[in-house]
Amino acid sequence: MKFTQNPFRTTKTVSSDLVSKNAKLLTQASFIHQEVAGIYTFLPLGLRVLNKIEKIIREEMDKVAIEIQMTSLAPKKIWEETGRINTVDVLMKTSGANEASLAKSNTEYVLNSTHEEMVTPLVQEFAHSYKDFPVAVYQIQTKFRNEPRAKTGLLRCREFRMKDAYSFHRSVEDLKRYYEVMKEVYMTVFRRVGLGDDTVIALASGGDFTTDYSHEFQTIVDAGEDTLFIVKSKNLCFNREVAPSQAPKLNDDQEEPKPMTDVEGIGMIGVDELAKFLQIPVEKTTKTLLFETDKGEVIAAAVRGGYDVDEEKLKKVVDAKSLKLASADVVKKVTGAEVGYAGPLNLPDSVKVYFDESTSNRRNFECGANKTHYHTINVNWERDLPLPEQFYDFKVAKEGDIYPETGEVYEVKRGCEVGNIFPLHTKFSKAFNFTYLDEQGKPQTLYMGCYGIGSSRLVGVIVEKYADDKGLVWPKQLAPFTVHLIDIQQHDRGQEIYDHLQAAGIEVIWDDRDARAGEKFADADLIGVPYRAVVSTKTGDKIELKERTSNETQLVTLEELLERAR
Amino acid sequence: MKFTQNPFRTTKTVSSDLVSKNAKLLTQASFIHQEVAGIYTFLPLGLRVLNKIEKIIREEMDKVAIEIQMTSLAPKKIWEETGRINTVDVLMKTSGANEASLAKSNTEYVLNSTHEEMVTPLVQEFAHSYKDFPVAVYQIQTKFRNEPRAKTGLLRCREFRMKDAYSFHRSVEDLKRYYEVMKEVYMTVFRRVGLGDDTVIALASGGDFTTDYSHEFQTIVDAGEDTLFIVKSKNLCFNREVAPSQAPKLNDDQEEPKPMTDVEGIGMIGVDELAKFLQIPVEKTTKTLLFETDKGEVIAAAVRGGYDVDEEKLKKVVDAKSLKLASADVVKKVTGAEVGYAGPLNLPDSVKVYFDESTSNRRNFECGANKTHYHTINVNWERDLPLPEQFYDFKVAKEGDIYPETGEVYEVKRGCEVGNIFPLHTKFSKAFNFTYLDEQGKPQTLYMGCYGIGSSRLVGVIVEKYADDKGLVWPKQLAPFTVHLIDIQQHDRGQEIYDHLQAAGIEVIWDDRDARAGEKFADADLIGVPYRAVVSTKTGDKIELKERTSNETQLVTLEELLERAR
Repeated sequence: MKFTQNPFRTTKTVSSDLVSKNAKLLTQASFIHQEVAGIYTFLPLGLRVLNKIEKIIREEMDKVAIEIQMTSLAPKKIWEETGRINTVDVLMKTSGANEASLAKSNTEYVLNSTHEEMVTPLVQEFAHSYKDFPVAVYQIQTKFRNEPRAKTGLLRCREFRMKDAYSFHRSVEDLKRYYEVMKEVYMTVFRRVGLGDDTVIALASGGDFTTDYSHEFQTIVDAGEDTLFIVKSKNLCFNREVAPSQAPKLNDDQEEPKPMTDVEGIGMIGVDELAKFLQIPVEKTTKTLLFETDKGEVIAAAVRGGYDVDEEKLKKVVDAKSLKLASADVVKKVTGAEVGYAGPLNLPDSVKVYFDESTSNRRNFECGANKTHYHTINVNWERDLPLPEQFYDFKVAKEGDIYPETGEVYEVKRGCEVGNIFPLHTKFSKAFNFTYLDEQGKPQTLYMGCYGIGSSRLVGVIVEKYADDKGLVWPKQLAPFTVHLIDIQQHDRGQEIYDHLQAAGIEVIWDDRDARAGEKFADADLIGVPYRAVVSTKTGDKIELKERTSNETQLVTLEELLERAR
Repeated sequence: MKFTQNPFRTTKTVSSDLVSKNAKLLTQASFIHQEVAGIYTFLPLGLRVLNKIEKIIREEMDKVAIEIQMTSLAPKKIWEETGRINTVDVLMKTSGANEASLAKSNTEYVLNSTHEEMVTPLVQEFAHSYKDFPVAVYQIQTKFRNEPRAKTGLLRCREFRMKDAYSFHRSVEDLKRYYEVMKEVYMTVFRRVGLGDDTVIALASGGDFTTDYSHEFQTIVDAGEDTLFIVKSKNLCFNREVAPSQAPKLNDDQEEPKPMTDVEGIGMIGVDELAKFLQIPVEKTTKTLLFETDKGEVIAAAVRGGYDVDEEKLKKVVDAKSLKLASADVVKKVTGAEVGYAGPLNLPDSVKVYFDESTSNRRNFECGANKTHYHTINVNWERDLPLPEQFYDFKVAKEGDIYPETGEVYEVKRGCEVGNIFPLHTKFSKAFNFTYLDEQGKPQTLYMGCYGIGSSRLVGVIVEKYADDKGLVWPKQLAPFTVHLIDIQQHDRGQEIYDHLQAAGIEVIWDDRDARAGEKFADADLIGVPYRAVVSTKTGDKIELKERTSNETQLVTLEELLERAR
C-alpha cells in the first residue's frame, strides 16, 4: 500500500480520555478510532492486524471444531429459559429506535454477550444420539457488553471481536479430555501471536456452574486488570479471586498480654487512621463486617486490618447463595453502635462470627467495641475471646500473602485475560433439557464446555507488551506490513523497490509522500512495521535496512531485503 | 471435509413458516438455521458460501476503496444530528437488558442500519484539504434492521451481512466519475458470483437527497420483491416507484356521448364491483382520493379504475413534503358524502383536483357523485368536466403500461435488489458541516455517494436463481466444495481419492457415512456441489463423475477428475 492511499493519517495529539497506552498509540498511528468510550472503529492498518490474529485463531480452531456464524440478535425467550436475562449484568437488548420503527415491529431482542443460549438449542436440533457426540463448534464474531467503565482501550470494550467455542460431550471424562485439547490449542494460538512466553494459565472461579476451577489465559502485562498469584515451585497461578491466601505472621508471640480496655476514638473508622491514633501496627487492628444472608441471618466476618473481605469466598464459607452488607439499621440493632464500630466481643448469640485466618496468632489486638466511637484494645485469644472452632480464608489475597500448601510467598503480577475456558458441565444442557440417547435408547446427561479468545483485545495486549517509547512494535506475523519503505526524494527508486517487493508477495507500505525525512522516520517508528527500508541519494544502489527493534542500520541489496522480509 | 465431521446434517422437513424457496432449501441442506423470523445462523456449509461471496466483493472493492470496520453501536447524538434517528423506520436502539445492567450503564446506543452517520464525522476528522480528496472507504459488516416482515429467507433479514461503501468528493463531477467506476465494479462482482446475465441496473428514487435517480442492481428472479419496468429499445430499466407510466388507450373515441346521469349503487366502493354493477369496463370508472397536505390543504387525485395512486409521485406533483389520506370527517365535510363516493364534479373551489393521464381520452366515464351511494355515469370531458390545464402521472405503474417517450409497452419483471448506489450529494456533509479547504484556503461544499451490496442476500438470490427441484445448485466459484465424493461401501477407496483431492488443494466433501447409496445421492443433489464423484465396486479403478446440472455420468480417471475440478 502506498501511504497516500490511506486517508487515515497518523496524528500527534489524541483525545485526553484515551489514557491507556494501547488506545493512545493505536489512535496516534491511526489503527483504530474511538467512536465513544469502549467502541472503536478499526481503520485500515488496525483491521489488517485484527485479520491476521483472527486468521491464526481460525487455523488452530479448525483443527478441533467447526466454524459457524451465529447471530447477534437473540429471541428473548431463550435467555429467559436460562434465567440469565435477569442476571448477566452486561447484557443489552434492542428495540425500535423511533415511533415509525416501533410501529413496524415492537419485538425486543437480546444482543448476545455470549452464545450459550443460542448454541445449546441449535446443537440440540441436530445431535440426538450417542453417535453424534462429541460436537464442537466455534465462531469469530462481534460481541456486545454493557461495560460500566471502558478506559483501557481495546482491553475492555462495549463492542469487540471474539472467538467463542462450545463443546458437547457424553461424559465428564470426555469434556475433560477435550478441555485439555483446548488448552493446547489456546497456548498454540498465544505462541503464534507472540505472547507465548508471557501467557500463563490461571485458575479462576467456575462461577455458579461448577465447583471446578475455570481457566484463564493471562498475559503478564502491567496494564492488565487482573491480579495473579503465582506459586513458582508448583508452576501454579491463581486469579486473585480464588487464590488461597495466608497472611504473613506478625511474630508477636513473645509479647506480654496487656489489660484489655476500651478507648474512645471519635469517628475513627478506617484501620490506617485508627492504627496511627492507637499507635499500633495496622495488622493489630480488626475489621469486622456484618452481612445479611439470603436466609435472612446476620453474620459477622472479621479480617485483620489491611485486608478486605472477599464476598465470593465468604459466600462459600457461609454456604449462602447471596450476601449483602448489613444496613446501618441492622448494624445499630445488632451491635448497638453506628456503622464502623462492630467487633466480635459481646455480639448477640444469634450472630455467628466467622474469623479469617489473618486474625489468628495475634496478641494484644484491637477490635471494634460495639459502642459508637469506641475500640477495644489489647484483646487476646482465649483470655478475652474464645478461639473459634475454625479459622477460614475469606480475605482478598494481597501481595505478600503466602500459598498455604507450600508456605511460599506468592509472586504477584498483573495479567490481562486473553482467553478463558470454562467447564459448563450441565448448566445449559439442563436448562434446555438437552440429553442424548445412549446405546440402549435411554436419555443421558450431556456435558458442555465453552472457550473464548478476545481477538480485538489481543491487538491491545500486543501493543501493551511490545510497544516502546517511539511507538508500536509488531511481531512480524501480525504486522500490517512487513516492510516500511521510505524514499527520501527518490520517488522513482522508491517506486522500483515497491514494485519489486509487491511482485515478491511481500506486504509493503511505501511512504510516497512529499514529506521531510524526519517525519517519515517518526511515522515508521510509530506504525511499528518490522523492517524499515530507506532509499536516498546516500544509499546508492543499496537500501538502508533497520529493524524496528534495533538501532542499527545496514546497507543491503534488493535481494538481501527480499530474503530478510520473506 | 468429511460428512461425519459436520454435526449439522441435512433434514427432510423444515418449519412451515419457511415459505421461500431459498429459506426452505438452505435449511434442508443445513446451510443456514432460522433462529427467529429474519434472523439466520450460518452453518458450516452456508458460511463457506458467504465467505466466498465476501472474498469476491473484497477483491473488487480493494481496487477502488480502502477497507475499514466501523462499529454496530453508535452514539445517539450523531443520529440526532441528521435527524434520522426519528425517520429511519427500520432503526433499532440498544439499552441494558436488566436492572443490574442498567445500573452499570443506562446509555442507549443506536444499532446502525447504515453508516452515513458514522463515516461522515470519521472521515471529517482526517480529510480537510482539497489534496485529501477523493476518499472512498468500505466495510463488510453485520447490519440490523427492524423489518416488519421477514418471509423471504435471506432476501430480507433483520440481521444480515452487507458491504457498504462511502465516497467523498470535491465536486459533483468527481462524484459522478466515481459513481460510474462503482457501477463497473458492481457489475464485475455480480458477474463473478454468477448473476451477471440476470442483473440489470434499474433507476430508482433518489429519496429526499437529490432529484437524481439512485441506481439499483436488480437480479431478475421470480422471488424478487421489486417490480421492474424495462424499456427494451432503450436498454432502460425502472423500479416501479419511478417508472414513468402511460396507461394503454381505451379506444372509445368513436363512442357517442351519452347523457350524464347519477346512479344509485349502494355500498359500491371497489371499482371492480362497481364496473360489474354498472356494466361498463373497469377502465371507465374513476378512483378519486382526497389527501391532506403538510400545508393543511385538501386536494383530490383522480386515476382511472384499475390503477392506484403512487403517493411518492403525487407528492412531487403537488409539491408537498408529506401527504396523508383525508380522514372520513374531512371527506364528509368536503364532498358531503361518506368515503368512497368522491368525484371531481362539484367539489368546493378550495379543493384542487389533479388528474392522472389515465383519466384522459375517455368517453362516457364514471365518477363518484359526491353523494353517498351515488355514482355519476357518462361523464365527458369538456361537456361535463373542463379539461384540466395538465394531466399528470402519479399512478402506480402496472403491467401493460407504456413508456411515454417511445410509446412501447414495458416488459415487466420481478427483481431482487442485490446492490444499490446512491448519490447522496450534500445531505450528510451539510448535516455535519463537513467542508474542505480549496487551494485558496476557502471552505467548499463536499459531495458524497454511498454504495451497498447485500452479501448474505446474494446467497439467497443465487439459490432462487440456480436451485432446481432436487435441491441447491452452486456456481463453482461459490460452492462450499468443488467435489462431492461418495463411496458406496468402498471406504478405503474413498479415503484414497479424498486424500488425493485434498493434496491437490481441491475442496472436497466426502460422504463417509455408512448410509444407503440413495440417501447419499439425494444429499449430494440437495447440497448442490458442482461435481459428484462416486466410487463403488462397479467403477473399478475409475470414478463415476456427474455434474450437478447434468444427468449424464461418465467414468474418469483420478487425473481427469483433478483436471476437471481444478
